[in-house]
Amino acid sequence: MAIFNMIEENEATGKVKEVYEDIKKKRNVKFITNFWKMLANEPDTLERTWNSLQQVMKKGALDEMTKELIYVAVSMANSCEYCIKSHSIAAKKQGASKEMLAELIAVVSMANETNRLVEAYQVKVDSIYE
Amino acid sequence: MAIFNMIEENEATGKVKEVYEDIKKKRNVKFITNFWKMLANEPDTLERTWNSLQQVMKKGALDEMTKELIYVAVSMANSCEYCIKSHSIAAKKQGASKEMLAELIAVVSMANETNRLVEAYQVKVDSIYE
Amino acid sequence: MAIFNMIEENEATGKVKEVYEDIKKKRNVKFITNFWKMLANEPDTLERTWNSLQQVMKKGALDEMTKELIYVAVSMANSCEYCIKSHSIAAKKQGASKEMLAELIAVVSMANETNRLVEAYQVKVDSIYE
Amino acid sequence: MAIFNMIEENEATGKVKEVYEDIKKKRNVKFITNFWKMLANEPDTLERTWNSLQQVMKKGALDEMTKELIYVAVSMANSCEYCIKSHSIAAKKQGASKEMLAELIAVVSMANETNRLVEAYQVKVDSIYE
Amino acid sequence: MAIFNMIEENEATGKVKEVYEDIKKKRNVKFITNFWKMLANEPDTLERTWNSLQQVMKKGALDEMTKELIYVAVSMANSCEYCIKSHSIAAKKQGASKEMLAELIAVVSMANETNRLVEAYQVKVDSIYE
Amino acid sequence: MAIFNMIEENEATGKVKEVYEDIKKKRNVKFITNFWKMLANEPDTLERTWNSLQQVMKKGALDEMTKELIYVAVSMANSCEYCIKSHSIAAKKQGASKEMLAELIAVVSMANETNRLVEAYQVKVDSIYE
Repeated sequence: MAIFNMIEENEATGKVKEVYEDIKKKRNVKFITNFWKMLANEPDTLERTWNSLQQVMKKGALDEMTKELIYVAVSMANSCEYCIKSHSIAAKKQGASKEMLAELIAVVSMANETNRLVEAYQVKVDSIYE
Repeated sequence: MAIFNMIEENEATGKVKEVYEDIKKKRNVKFITNFWKMLANEPDTLERTWNSLQQVMKKGALDEMTKELIYVAVSMANSCEYCIKSHSIAAKKQGASKEMLAELIAVVSMANETNRLVEAYQVKVDSIYE
Repeated sequence: MAIFNMIEENEATGKVKEVYEDIKKKRNVKFITNFWKMLANEPDTLERTWNSLQQVMKKGALDEMTKELIYVAVSMANSCEYCIKSHSIAAKKQGASKEMLAELIAVVSMANETNRLVEAYQVKVDSIYE
Repeated sequence: MAIFNMIEENEATGKVKEVYEDIKKKRNVKFITNFWKMLANEPDTLERTWNSLQQVMKKGALDEMTKELIYVAVSMANSCEYCIKSHSIAAKKQGASKEMLAELIAVVSMANETNRLVEAYQVKVDSIYE
Repeated sequence: MAIFNMIEENEATGKVKEVYEDIKKKRNVKFITNFWKMLANEPDTLERTWNSLQQVMKKGALDEMTKELIYVAVSMANSCEYCIKSHSIAAKKQGASKEMLAELIAVVSMANETNRLVEAYQVKVDSIYE
Repeated sequence: MAIFNMIEENEATGKVKEVYEDIKKKRNVKFITNFWKMLANEPDTLERTWNSLQQVMKKGALDEMTKELIYVAVSMANSCEYCIKSHSIAAKKQGASKEMLAELIAVVSMANETNRLVEAYQVKVDSIYE
C-alpha cells in the first residue's frame, strides 16, 4: 500500500531515462541508487535535484571531500540514516578516513550540545559579533 | 526577571575565575564572551564544556578550520544564531574565506532539502550501503 | 522489555472502549490502528487526542483534504514515518492524487532548503513584512 | 502588516471572554499573557488548548513542578524562547530553584549530544531493550 | 562584523542583476526583498534558488495557494520567522484568508503533538499501511 | 559496508578497556551496551562522554530519577529511539512508574504543540518575562 514505488532502470523513459544515464556516466557507476529511483516519481524534481547537486557539490573554494563531510554533518544533525550512510561513503571516496569521520561525529555532537546550551541560557550575541 | 545573569569577570571566583583565565590565555583574547559568562552559572558545566571543546576542536585527522566549518554547518542546521556567528568568526580566524562560507551555506541548505526528500519518499537504504 | 504495549480491542474497557467504538463509528472503519492502541495506555490522553483531532481536522475555512495535506507536510518536516504513511492515506481518502503528493514533497523539501538559507544568511525581516 | 493581532481583554467577547476569565480565576492572575491573546484569534483553539493544558499539567503520578521542568526541557530542545521563559517562571512558582534549572540545562544539553552520537554512529538497539 | 551583507539593487551586476530584474518582472514587484539580496552573495545559489522556486511553486496538481499554505506549514514546523511571514503574505496574495491561516496553525500544532506521541510511544506501522 | 563496527569487550584494550571496566563496576552491570561499543571507535570521545554523563546525571539539586525523566523527554523531542528506550529503562531503575512515563509523554507532546503555536503566531515575550 505504499504510495510511491521506485522507478527501476528498465522502466525509465524520457527525462527519467536521460537523468539515469547522466548519473551513471558522470559518477561512473553501474546502477542507480534508491534515492534517484524514488525521485523519479516526479521527473522535474529528479532533474532539478541532480542538476543542483552537481552545482553545489563541485570543487570550488571548498574541496569536494570537505563538502561531503559537511553533507554528512548536516545529515547527522537531521538524523537522516540514508543520507548519513550514502554521504559517508561518498566522503570516503573523496579521501576521508575513518578517523576523520569519527572526529566529525565528535564535532557534530559537541556542537549539538553547545547549541542547546546557548538556547537554554538564551545567550545574547556579543557586541563584537554584531 | 531573567532567571540567569552573566557572571562578569570581576565577579568570578574559584573555578569560574580559573576557567576564565585559562580561556583568555589559551585563546589569546582579552575578554570573556557571553557564552562562557552564562555557563558560569554552573561552574561544573563551565569547566566541563571548556575542557570538552578543547579536546574536540584540536587538530587531529581533521584540521581546525574544517572542524570549525562543521561546527558552523551544524549550528545552521539547528538555527542557532549565536553559534553561527561565533563559529563563523572562529572559522575565519582559522583561514576560512567568505567564499568558503558561502559554499558551506549552499551545501547545508541543499543537504536539508535532500534529507527531507529521503524522509518524505521514505527511501530504503540500498543493499550496497548495508 | 517494552514499557508500553498496545491495548487491544478485546482488552478495552470503560473510557478506552468508548473511544474505540466512537472511532470505528465516526470513521466507518472495522478496526483500531496502532496509534490509538498505544495512546490507550493513558485513557485521558486517548480521549483528549481523539476529540482534538476531530475538532482540528473537520471542514472549516480549509477543506479536509487540504488539512490532511498540511498534516503530511508537517510529518515530513518532522520525519515521522508512521505519521507520513497514515496521513498520506487519509489525504488520498479525501481525494488527494499521487501527483498532488509528489508536488507536496517537492514543496516541503524546497521549503526546508530555503528555511535553512534564511537562517544561515540570517536574513533580516523586510520592513514591509513587519 | 502582521496577519494576527492580539485580542486584548477589553476586546474579548463570548467564548474568548469566558476563557480569559477562567484563566485569571484558576491561575489567580490579574491579566492575560500574550500567548492566550494570540490564540484567541481562533476561539476553538484557545478553549481546547486551555482545557488540554489543565488536564495535562495537573498533579498526577508526576507532581506539578516536575511537569513544568519537563515542559522547560522540551522547550529548550525546540529552542522556543517564549516557552522557555514562561515555563521556567511557572517551574519556579512550583518550587524549582535556580540550581535545579541550571542542572536541567546541563541534562538537556548532554542529552542533545548523546542523542546525536547515537544517530551519527547509528547505534543498534540492544537486544535487552527490545 | 557581519560576514555577509546584502547586495543592494544598485550594486548588482551580471547574473545578480539579471535575476533581480527577472524577479521584479515575473512577480510584478518594485523592489527586491532581503532574502534575494543575501543569496546574491553567491550568484549561482541565487539563480538556482530562483529557478527552483518557480518550478516548484507553479500551479500543477496542487494550486498555488495550497502550495503557499504548505510552505507556511513547513516554515512553522521549522520555526523560521522570516519564512512564516513572507509565505503567509504570499498565501494571502493567492487568496488565503485569515481564517484559513488560523486553521492551518491549528493543524500544524496538532500534527506536532501527535508526531511526538507516535515517536514517544514508538508506535509500529500498521500492517495495512505497509 | 558499515564504516564503524562495535568494539566488543574482548577486543578492548588500553583506555577503552579501562572505561568498559569502570562502566561495569560503577553501574553494576555484567556487559557493555551498544552505545559504548560504538563510541569506543574514538577512545577520547568514549572517555569524555562517560565522564560527562557521570557528572551531569549524578544527584544534585535534582534527584537522579528526575534527571532521567528529563533525558527521556529530550530524547522524545529529538525522536531518538535508542535513547528513549535506554533512558526509560534507566528512569524505571530509579523508581519511575509506568504512569509517570505515560504522563511524561503527555507533557512532552503537549509542549510540542504549544511550542509550535507560539512560533506560528509569533507570540512576543510579555514584558513581565523580560
